[in-house]
Amino acid sequence: MHFGYKTMNIALLVSYDGTELCGWQVQKKGRTVQGEIEGAIARAFSLSVRVTGSGRTDAGVHAAGQVCNFPFEESIKISPEKIADALNVCLPQDVRVLKSAAVPDSFDACRSAKKKTYRYGVYLSRREHPLLGRYAARYGFAPDIVRMRGCAALLEGEHDFSAFSTTGSSVKTSVRTVYSVAVDVQTRFGVPCVSFDVCGSGFLYNMVRIMAGAVLGVGDGSLPLSRVERALETGNRDLLGKTMPANGLTLLSVDYGFAPFGESGQ
Amino acid sequence: MHFGYKTMNIALLVSYDGTELCGWQVQKKGRTVQGEIEGAIARAFSLSVRVTGSGRTDAGVHAAGQVCNFPFEESIKISPEKIADALNVCLPQDVRVLKSAAVPDSFDACRSAKKKTYRYGVYLSRREHPLLGRYAARYGFAPDIVRMRGCAALLEGEHDFSAFSTTGSSVKTSVRTVYSVAVDVQTRFGVPCVSFDVCGSGFLYNMVRIMAGAVLGVGDGSLPLSRVERALETGNRDLLGKTMPANGLTLLSVDYGFAPFGESGQ
Repeated sequence: MHFGYKTMNIALLVSYDGTELCGWQVQKKGRTVQGEIEGAIARAFSLSVRVTGSGRTDAGVHAAGQVCNFPFEESIKISPEKIADALNVCLPQDVRVLKSAAVPDSFDACRSAKKKTYRYGVYLSRREHPLLGRYAARYGFAPDIVRMRGCAALLEGEHDFSAFSTTGSSVKTSVRTVYSVAVDVQTRFGVPCVSFDVCGSGFLYNMVRIMAGAVLGVGDGSLPLSRVERALETGNRDLLGKTMPANGLTLLSVDYGFAPFGESGQ
Repeated sequence: MHFGYKTMNIALLVSYDGTELCGWQVQKKGRTVQGEIEGAIARAFSLSVRVTGSGRTDAGVHAAGQVCNFPFEESIKISPEKIADALNVCLPQDVRVLKSAAVPDSFDACRSAKKKTYRYGVYLSRREHPLLGRYAARYGFAPDIVRMRGCAALLEGEHDFSAFSTTGSSVKTSVRTVYSVAVDVQTRFGVPCVSFDVCGSGFLYNMVRIMAGAVLGVGDGSLPLSRVERALETGNRDLLGKTMPANGLTLLSVDYGFAPFGESGQ
């Protein structure tokens, strides 16, 4: 597509409210983040490119620091940091480019990713709360923080996470390293809220949402810790509870071992 | 309307996401909180009543703990605490009843209110952020926390707040007591966020939004503290900066000097 023009590699730091989006990846029907960004690049710069994301996120999942990259014509006179502003003019309100930068040609938002951090949020309430329910799932039971942290500690480290993946997803290996699972409780509008920040080398399909469900289940006593241990040993998905809803999940950041957007970028 | 039936006085603790609502008060066009609640009471209980709110909130303003009350037929067999669930079935997603309770006949959500607490939130960023922008306004400058607290302290106490009110609003007196203005900074998704929690005996039209703008202006040096002093003395609205946008404002709670919803209810 470049007809001999020199290209530069542009990375974008992107945030989106996934509520009304059909996930990251372009599909035939429905608005997607990738589709919106590719459309904005086309409208702003008359460039038809494919954007590479650090990974997909499902419909309803949010991102505070998704990263993607695409080839940009060097002949277009704009400083790389200003590309964010040009794209934001063409993007819908629920998708925003927070930063843009020129990165080395070898940078690939997906393959260069070293670690990702997700947050899963729930609020503990018998009734729905309009100001908490957009970015956190409701949980009707009262989990114990010490028990939840016990389960979280069990999930840390290198494991075969087959049991923490939606059946049917095909990947080469289901071994992943989870560097940390931090469980915290905070009160918002008088309602206790639990957040799980999970940092790992990579994640299987639905892995964080199944992990969050397991930690909560152990916390409220509905899931014995021994079943989580057996799930890790046997890879049996059926030993664990249900997959938590998409709206509680937010991709916080992607770590590349260097700062693509400079010191102040994330 | 009660044809000799005995009535009881029911209070509701209500939360709403004001983004797509035209404010509290029923009006000819557009969805309002009062209209949605009265509609839900009609659908759930076949009762046509007027609901009394603690006060109006403008289009786009949120509430975590708005309070209202209405007369309810004693002959309807439902325990007062369950009225919340019955109404939630009939309410749209962005309006929820968190608690319901029977209160003394003398209770009037508006006239019985002793104090109200509002939160105004801003995030400090040159660019819009989709995950922060729903419940906080964007502010493009970097205010100093010490200066902001200096201005906040000036606003505390009993003052004539004429200058902190949108011109044209007619009230008997513009003297109000502000019990506290707490300014705090917190980092969310790597972005500094400032919140102002303002507790007062009552508020003039747009008062919290104008106060927040003044505190921010003093914080970033664009508004001299002496002008805020003069505004308090003279009642001249023109001395202060602009009214901050509605979406940053949330009614946190209404204080009645007792707990209408029991110990655990706000």
